[in-house]
Amino acid sequence: MATINDNYLKLKAGYLFPEIARRVNAFAQANPDAKIIRLGIGDVTEPLPQACRTAMIQATEEMGERTTFKGYGPEQGYLWLREKIAAHDFHARGCEVDAEEIFISDGSKCDTGNILEIFGKNNTIAVTDPVYPVYVDTNVMAGNTGEANEAGEFAGLVYLPITAENNFTAQIPSQKVDLIYLCFPNNPTGAVATKEHLKAWVDYALAHGSIIFFDAAYEAFISDAEIPHSIYEIEGARDCAIEFRSFSKNAGFTGTRCALTVVPKTLTAKASDGSDVELWKLWNRRQSTKFNGVSYIVQRGAEAVYSPQGQVQTKQLVSFYMENAKIIREKLTAAGFHVYGGVNAPYVWVKTPTGLSSWDFFDKLLHTVNVVVTPGSGFGAAGEGYFRISAFNSRENVEEAMRRITEKFKV
Amino acid sequence: MATINDNYLKLKAGYLFPEIARRVNAFAQANPDAKIIRLGIGDVTEPLPQACRTAMIQATEEMGERTTFKGYGPEQGYLWLREKIAAHDFHARGCEVDAEEIFISDGSKCDTGNILEIFGKNNTIAVTDPVYPVYVDTNVMAGNTGEANEAGEFAGLVYLPITAENNFTAQIPSQKVDLIYLCFPNNPTGAVATKEHLKAWVDYALAHGSIIFFDAAYEAFISDAEIPHSIYEIEGARDCAIEFRSFSKNAGFTGTRCALTVVPKTLTAKASDGSDVELWKLWNRRQSTKFNGVSYIVQRGAEAVYSPQGQVQTKQLVSFYMENAKIIREKLTAAGFHVYGGVNAPYVWVKTPTGLSSWDFFDKLLHTVNVVVTPGSGFGAAGEGYFRISAFNSRENVEEAMRRITEKFKV
Repeated sequence: MATINDNYLKLKAGYLFPEIARRVNAFAQANPDAKIIRLGIGDVTEPLPQACRTAMIQATEEMGERTTFKGYGPEQGYLWLREKIAAHDFHARGCEVDAEEIFISDGSKCDTGNILEIFGKNNTIAVTDPVYPVYVDTNVMAGNTGEANEAGEFAGLVYLPITAENNFTAQIPSQKVDLIYLCFPNNPTGAVATKEHLKAWVDYALAHGSIIFFDAAYEAFISDAEIPHSIYEIEGARDCAIEFRSFSKNAGFTGTRCALTVVPKTLTAKASDGSDVELWKLWNRRQSTKFNGVSYIVQRGAEAVYSPQGQVQTKQLVSFYMENAKIIREKLTAAGFHVYGGVNAPYVWVKTPTGLSSWDFFDKLLHTVNVVVTPGSGFGAAGEGYFRISAFNSRENVEEAMRRITEKFKV
Repeated sequence: MATINDNYLKLKAGYLFPEIARRVNAFAQANPDAKIIRLGIGDVTEPLPQACRTAMIQATEEMGERTTFKGYGPEQGYLWLREKIAAHDFHARGCEVDAEEIFISDGSKCDTGNILEIFGKNNTIAVTDPVYPVYVDTNVMAGNTGEANEAGEFAGLVYLPITAENNFTAQIPSQKVDLIYLCFPNNPTGAVATKEHLKAWVDYALAHGSIIFFDAAYEAFISDAEIPHSIYEIEGARDCAIEFRSFSKNAGFTGTRCALTVVPKTLTAKASDGSDVELWKLWNRRQSTKFNGVSYIVQRGAEAVYSPQGQVQTKQLVSFYMENAKIIREKLTAAGFHVYGGVNAPYVWVKTPTGLSSWDFFDKLLHTVNVVVTPGSGFGAAGEGYFRISAFNSRENVEEAMRRITEKFKV
């Protein structure tokens, strides 16, 4: 008799975003005339930059000639793309990251989930609360947790609350944790980490032999010059951190699919015999064996992000969404909401009006003003009483959504 | 201290194809003037069909307009693609496969590896020998095996030899196995399974509550009308089989990346409490949580495979490679080699000249006639004494390689 991975049965009803989609679809079917504005899932809406499209069309045409046709590429990605990333995203900021340490993939969601495969089952794992649900769910699926309690917290995970009370800055744990997920600029709260805060994490990790999973998917949205974009801006990070990045948000690639993961060659973890094993080698083996690289056409599109036109066009995209974030912040603040984030991140994190749970207010917004947000409790127990608004939408939709919300709700 | 997944340390030196690449690169560097012909890795060489390129260019242009821009798509793939696959690949052959049971992915290599995530750790797993190395290596990485012996066989796996002696037809096991990998047309031997043979496997699986992983990546190369293309042509298969398919070989997508996996909604396996759990739900949860769907542009390219022009163009591609296979078979047979496969599959499986191991003959071919093949022992212990030649190349290269081999080697 074939048996299943029982850990899946520990998971809650559904991954957050499909659950939102289910409620929105049910409402839309019952109310076909409602003009729903979706500020829930962090999905971009503006056209793919011209530079990327031009490069992708050219790459598609290359596929039509025998001499320029591309079959299997390197599982790690083409070196011409990895070299541009190393130069622009890392060397330009003083980070020592070699092109060979960069692995191109089809998404940070995949990478942050798959990275667990190269680690042992006996690691203590820390996540912030609230947190991007994929970090937690992939640990549950991998058998790294026990069951969930009423609040949705899984036994075995160390939750580090980030709320208005601690200025959305997780306290460095007093106990020993082995794997630590950090996401800055933060999804969902929009908070950022100072150099000092990241240095405290790096120092902790170096002292304890821990590995930091640093999710920098939103680094392009940082406006404050003092805030680090990469964990490798911190001395010592090459010995304790893996960084995840994505083209989804800065270049509008959510439907085009390209991301990257940095595994420094200096990074090691312990085998059960106590020896140090290079994580680069393990991840390289994982990717070589279970992945066949990203579409050549898409990689050419990603490369174009680093062209002079691509740089201008992606900066315009980021500015456009950050202007949306500013509008959201200002309108909701004026209406009396307690508003966080949205300055160095495309997410605005908002307290629900007194007494309402996150899902209650989600339903209320959907039913009364036909605006979709993301319930904070979907990101973890400490997200209860908050909701997230995404700045990824047209100006018109953002303004209309703010008009509807602020007309109906005064806090 | 963070610990690693020790199972990785059980893996042999390298995944087969990177090891071949290493030897070929070393030879090429030492002999820069050698005109190497690569018939090793099964990578296509002919241009991407015009229909696919046209669709992808149009899709890229759609990405440039706000109204037609596509962000995140369904993790399972767009329904318009899944419906075309259901109609053309399954309904047309009398198979009951619903569009919703089809999951679009970026590769069969990923899917055949990732599928293990939804299964328990206590399953007995059977593979043929020789076998596509990814099936074995992903089980090793997942901790489903013990250590390897001298012959490269991992403890805990059930190996089913397929050799000339049993006409490349694996014997139905006498013991109980829970998960069974079958690949027809077979990689590497090029053998096919009759309806009767597949029915024996389906009957076995139904009797034992086993699940068959059926890899049909090469089904487009079947020329014999009696040979089934899908496991679902066999009655009962919906209750015991998952099927993997790919656009890599029929439509030249190895560098473009698109594949699919069918998980029937009727398929179940046991939870540890003895209850039956639907595998569709688990795979859907896995894909929703750890994958973000295939590039919209690539999915439009895959859809074009099913257009009238796409059908003509992919048939031409398949015919072209199968003509190569015929040339390889005929030339090597005339030179006295014992030759198998290559009739319903793009792979020709050949006995090495007496006394030579697979890797010895690989090195000999590389060094004396500068032709790259794949050593049979790289696919498993029972592949020792064979080599695989891929028909994926230009006519000119295939003819030249056959000329060089048959001039130098008479068996």
